[in-house]
Amino acid sequence: MARWEPGARDRLVVAAVELFSEKGYDETTVAQIAERAGLTKSTFFRYFPDKRELLVAGQETLGTLLAEGIAGAPSDATPLQAVAAGLKAVSGVMSPINRELWPRMKAAIAASSELQERDALKSVGLAASMTTALVARGVPDPTAHLAAELGLLAFKRGYADWTGADRESDHDLAYYTSRALGELRAATASLG
Amino acid sequence: MARWEPGARDRLVVAAVELFSEKGYDETTVAQIAERAGLTKSTFFRYFPDKRELLVAGQETLGTLLAEGIAGAPSDATPLQAVAAGLKAVSGVMSPINRELWPRMKAAIAASSELQERDALKSVGLAASMTTALVARGVPDPTAHLAAELGLLAFKRGYADWTGADRESDHDLAYYTSRALGELRAATASLG
Repeated sequence: MARWEPGARDRLVVAAVELFSEKGYDETTVAQIAERAGLTKSTFFRYFPDKRELLVAGQETLGTLLAEGIAGAPSDATPLQAVAAGLKAVSGVMSPINRELWPRMKAAIAASSELQERDALKSVGLAASMTTALVARGVPDPTAHLAAELGLLAFKRGYADWTGADRESDHDLAYYTSRALGELRAATASLG
Repeated sequence: MARWEPGARDRLVVAAVELFSEKGYDETTVAQIAERAGLTKSTFFRYFPDKRELLVAGQETLGTLLAEGIAGAPSDATPLQAVAAGLKAVSGVMSPINRELWPRMKAAIAASSELQERDALKSVGLAASMTTALVARGVPDPTAHLAAELGLLAFKRGYADWTGADRESDHDLAYYTSRALGELRAATASLG
């Protein structure tokens, strides 16, 4: 029976991102990632089907959390208030590891068209999760689509602000996504 | 010297989409596409580096047209009026072939995760082209980002309406994208 490896998943992610930024994504193998993490290849495959999925492993979790946060917003919440609740739910699972690794992750994505495509599809999936959750609340289309796109933009901008911010700052991700959502809402007034 | 093939590019696209919907994207080879089009493999490679690029061959053209349309809008145009000018510029190059093939293209994309990823990255690229063109007009961020996302949503929704509309309708794509942009603009009032 497979031995439980404490923190194995996080160690694999850290090792992978280190190797991606050192050698490039295409040149990195699953065996190298496992070795760097001090684990076996079969342990790797207990957590991830391949190296690409490792980078986007959190996607389903993110989509689910966004949808649950939106569904759980008060019944009188506006579409953007519901989106803000979804973003807050996501913030709760973002660890210091996410924050530390992001600059290297971003570099790995920028250097690989395969990762760019995977990352773009992830965005489409997150927007779709939010749209579906908003429609389930009775938000009519195209308002639901639009609110979901604002949520996605707010998530990306807030995430970039969070990972780029002074590490001594005690604001969590929700602070930055909420601020970004407010700025985007204000910007709707100047679209013309 | 390579012989010039009249209409070769369009014939390759039509043949490819037919085969993708008959056999699936993964099972279709470049040789089969060329044969169906009555052309050689080397003719195929004069137009496209591989079968995937064939499906998104218009991306660079679309991005350039959107950006040029935005850049060419009157200097007192609002951000959304500039985006509407970009969408109108794109509409001019959309042929009946685009309209005819879309339902089968959509089915091919839905059946292939590789195509979904490529398609998602295309969307990101189009939004980036519009954002850059808006920033060059002096539109501040995040208004530029937001206007570009509305433009992208309007393009997708307008395209779906155009390809789904009664073929006897004499409205062009610009009519549908403009209508979608207007609906999205109106929806900003109900975001809360």
